[in-house]
Amino acid sequence: MARVLATLVAVDMPATRTDRRRARTRRQLVAAARELITERGVAGLRIAELTDAADVGRGSFYNHFDSKEDLVAAVFRESLETLAHTILTSIPDDLPPAERAAMADRRFVRLAYEDPDFARLLVQLHNGDDLFATATLPYARMALEPGIASGDFDVPDVDVMLVMLASSSMGLIRAILEGRVPPHAEQAHAESILRLLGVTDDEARRISRLPLD
Amino acid sequence: MARVLATLVAVDMPATRTDRRRARTRRQLVAAARELITERGVAGLRIAELTDAADVGRGSFYNHFDSKEDLVAAVFRESLETLAHTILTSIPDDLPPAERAAMADRRFVRLAYEDPDFARLLVQLHNGDDLFATATLPYARMALEPGIASGDFDVPDVDVMLVMLASSSMGLIRAILEGRVPPHAEQAHAESILRLLGVTDDEARRISRLPLD
Repeated sequence: MARVLATLVAVDMPATRTDRRRARTRRQLVAAARELITERGVAGLRIAELTDAADVGRGSFYNHFDSKEDLVAAVFRESLETLAHTILTSIPDDLPPAERAAMADRRFVRLAYEDPDFARLLVQLHNGDDLFATATLPYARMALEPGIASGDFDVPDVDVMLVMLASSSMGLIRAILEGRVPPHAEQAHAESILRLLGVTDDEARRISRLPLD
Repeated sequence: MARVLATLVAVDMPATRTDRRRARTRRQLVAAARELITERGVAGLRIAELTDAADVGRGSFYNHFDSKEDLVAAVFRESLETLAHTILTSIPDDLPPAERAAMADRRFVRLAYEDPDFARLLVQLHNGDDLFATATLPYARMALEPGIASGDFDVPDVDVMLVMLASSSMGLIRAILEGRVPPHAEQAHAESILRLLGVTDDEARRISRLPLD
């Protein structure tokens, strides 16, 4: 798994010096935008302030993004991809597939407890659900494939499973922020996800309660 | 179940003649708004056109709604409630809880195939996911409670289950509209929901494929 991700990252590395400078400017813009958005929300984001904060020329914004909306989507997409990547690579490769999947799911849903400001902006974002699904689906697929290949998971339809995984995680993050579910809702979610994957009820219960950190 | 719903409806019946007239005006506004929204989308809705179409005085709009957004939310909320109510009351009371739940779930998700215009407006709506959850949760709870009471369902956490049910249904409706899942995705969804409810994998598969109409 870690090797697959390392390859993906390597493919994305810009080849030439100009490309690297261009990539750096983009990163600075996205990082500054994330900070400004977290402080004041999406509506408070001004392009002039952003280029000042990122320490790049005003005009270079439009070399990278078509519009403010385009930048905002990039900020959320890249934050979610980084989170998913970090979670997947932090889980030992030698754990059984069901333990890996439950751990990844619990760490992801904990976003609502651990970074509620970012999570709140995400659920309030227009098209936030679409963005969440698009950004996280490739990682969810990587997390499930070893278990499907080994026969540990029995999934009626992988595409439907991925939709359920992404949309219910986002729904649960929303419910946690709004206080509509009890504490440690992420354990009940992981337990449910394991049942969906065909893990027996007893195993699902045990695995979803393993220590996390 | 049908009796519970009949009671709820009876409680909502306005008592006096003024109340009944007021309720009728509101219904006319919501019905006209639903038609206009389906034709032209939310952005194209104008209050003046709406009161003309509903055949009510211009001023009476603000006796019923604070804003256009308030009306739009009411249109979607009431359409979803009506759909959920119709589905629940159309399913025979004497079916086993798992068959009732699977049938209700499949009929709801089919909205994406049977009324794609309305479904598309719903998923594009700002806060559409919230609205969907709020409108459908009471009905989902009514659909699950008999099976929980009888012991047919084994649910780790009812609140988390309801969040997963609502958010994954909405996520699947979105995926069907975007062509991201195979035909009859609603069967795979119902099968997954039954597994979540603690139904065995074989039973979940059988029940989710029973004839629907």
